[in-house]
Amino acid sequence: MTKLWANSGDSHFLEPEDLWHQILPAAQADRMPRSERIGDDAEIVHVDGESFERKLPKVMTRKGADGLTIAEAAHRPPGARDLHERLKDLDREGIWAEVVYASIGLWSNMIKDPQLVRDAAHAENEWLVSEVMGVAPDRLVPAALMPMLQVDDAVAELQHAADIGLKIVSLPTGNPPGTRPYNDDSWEPLWAAAEEANMVVGFHIGTDNGDQATAHRGPGGAVLNYVETTYGGQRVAMQLVTSGALDRHPSLKVLISEGGASWVPFLGDRMNEGYRQHSAFVSPQLQREPKEILYDQVYASFQHDESAPASLWAMGYHNVLWGSDYPHLEGTYGHTQETLHELFDDVSPDVSNRIRCGTFRDLFPHTSVPPADET
Amino acid sequence: MTKLWANSGDSHFLEPEDLWHQILPAAQADRMPRSERIGDDAEIVHVDGESFERKLPKVMTRKGADGLTIAEAAHRPPGARDLHERLKDLDREGIWAEVVYASIGLWSNMIKDPQLVRDAAHAENEWLVSEVMGVAPDRLVPAALMPMLQVDDAVAELQHAADIGLKIVSLPTGNPPGTRPYNDDSWEPLWAAAEEANMVVGFHIGTDNGDQATAHRGPGGAVLNYVETTYGGQRVAMQLVTSGALDRHPSLKVLISEGGASWVPFLGDRMNEGYRQHSAFVSPQLQREPKEILYDQVYASFQHDESAPASLWAMGYHNVLWGSDYPHLEGTYGHTQETLHELFDDVSPDVSNRIRCGTFRDLFPHTSVPPADET
Repeated sequence: MTKLWANSGDSHFLEPEDLWHQILPAAQADRMPRSERIGDDAEIVHVDGESFERKLPKVMTRKGADGLTIAEAAHRPPGARDLHERLKDLDREGIWAEVVYASIGLWSNMIKDPQLVRDAAHAENEWLVSEVMGVAPDRLVPAALMPMLQVDDAVAELQHAADIGLKIVSLPTGNPPGTRPYNDDSWEPLWAAAEEANMVVGFHIGTDNGDQATAHRGPGGAVLNYVETTYGGQRVAMQLVTSGALDRHPSLKVLISEGGASWVPFLGDRMNEGYRQHSAFVSPQLQREPKEILYDQVYASFQHDESAPASLWAMGYHNVLWGSDYPHLEGTYGHTQETLHELFDDVSPDVSNRIRCGTFRDLFPHTSVPPADET
Repeated sequence: MTKLWANSGDSHFLEPEDLWHQILPAAQADRMPRSERIGDDAEIVHVDGESFERKLPKVMTRKGADGLTIAEAAHRPPGARDLHERLKDLDREGIWAEVVYASIGLWSNMIKDPQLVRDAAHAENEWLVSEVMGVAPDRLVPAALMPMLQVDDAVAELQHAADIGLKIVSLPTGNPPGTRPYNDDSWEPLWAAAEEANMVVGFHIGTDNGDQATAHRGPGGAVLNYVETTYGGQRVAMQLVTSGALDRHPSLKVLISEGGASWVPFLGDRMNEGYRQHSAFVSPQLQREPKEILYDQVYASFQHDESAPASLWAMGYHNVLWGSDYPHLEGTYGHTQETLHELFDDVSPDVSNRIRCGTFRDLFPHTSVPPADET
């Protein structure tokens, strides 16, 4: 079987548990969130001098047939925490360059002090440059953390991230509590700064603000909730299109990671229909049709979806890219070659190369070209 | 230009304003909901002896460039209320047979008395048979209203609707307040009854329970809210798949009207990914993969979406059908021929015929075959 190589628009790294004490002054590190399990289905979260107890959702506590929870299974691959082991894994799987999302990202919504969020993001981004990107600068593309409580803070940290060489920032799909939705003009300075700095804006699905997500229970609930995560990514893509943010900044590129890709043609058609049929009620008017903006500036990564290649060759969506979701359970670890062959053996080399390699290199031209496929 | 004919999986009829007094005893008719406009942006709703005031959303009150609100523009075509005028419109547009949704459908959520809901649905369904279906039994396929406060009532009315010759029931995409979500086993008798009666279960989008829908404001809001309506249709389709309802009733057919169609391959892939990758946490296990169930038993109608034909020829989804949404603003009234040519001129006759005519006749084999396309 030919070994196929692919870049990945969606991967994860688990930081060391004592990261904050490594990179922040002790007085600040002590204020950062940490959690403590109590019993089988609850935890206490300590953050900035306050504590609260919370029940863990069943999907987090239930053990699968292998006796592991989802989180335990997700971090089983040897490279989840160790970058040198990780590169061996990637070479074995056939993954060349990858966007690497940090795992501590969700903390920022818990902290109310903007200064603490600013300092933590600033310090972690420097750490990402030296400890992650530094290990393989032509392959590992870490996503910068962003202080999102105040737009000015996000702008300043985006500029800092660009200065130290980061190429993508990670934003949550749900705007953080206390901020306005992403279609609001208050975010305009952030989009302008990202375009100016040539910084990709990345949204990883599953980072909705809790109040905005729909939760299902009962029969089929696990699959329903899994699918539901894609809608947060679709929403932020269309907020940036319909509000005119992407229209005003035509060089700005957005990456929606792990949400699939064949929703893009559908969403483009549907936005066009609303935009045209309800035109008397639409504001703002755009320079280009919504679908054109979406196709040009929104990139979307998928793992297994067999319909994703056809979204390119049959529906004209060129900015689809593959993602491994390494090391998570929804990803392809352990079966990457099998998946790549299933996806690409029956499509043209152009389509295969675009989705495996080319689309990624539109976003990150500083990365090196993957090795030739090996027979 | 060749005149193309198509069946429509999505059309609407506006009942007479005094319908309840025509078909219910006066004491019951007086208790049915009616609304009274007060000022520019509010109304008083009277229902069953109670009254409440409610503010109307901006999209309902704003006037477009033509000086009409969305509701006024939607009901401008002559056949919106008059079935003989309607058939002339359909002939002119090139629409042959159509599913006709009633417009008073939303009232049932407002009434708390199950007996009143039962009697009103029973009476309106008889009226639909004599006054709508009766006008052109081989072309007009009215969707039965359903009393949804109690599952047993819905089952009984479905059987009544089947007895009097109706072929499809209309259910709201959001389960009514006080009932369990559609993936709950409490609905099982309804799915069993529909399969037994060979009754299509239709869900028209835009009928979410208000608490379940996401509302957008600010720039781009009109388009965002338009797109948002599709998610209610996608959710109910996947609730019926993942809960096992369609797996247990393999002859049951579901129609999602007006929500587009090219979301189906995407949703199928995503359900399969969750079902397989989270298999240790999934319940119930299904006899077939979720995507296979979705492709086989869920039918979806679209109006303008240029990617919809490719969802058939490139992604293998055979149950896509066209819909006019007559007489609404989101539909093709006035430009049906232009739309049909744009959609189908460049695809094979097999694909064109399937989407325009064949898929519809899978659901409603009692309708007559559309005329041959006229050159």
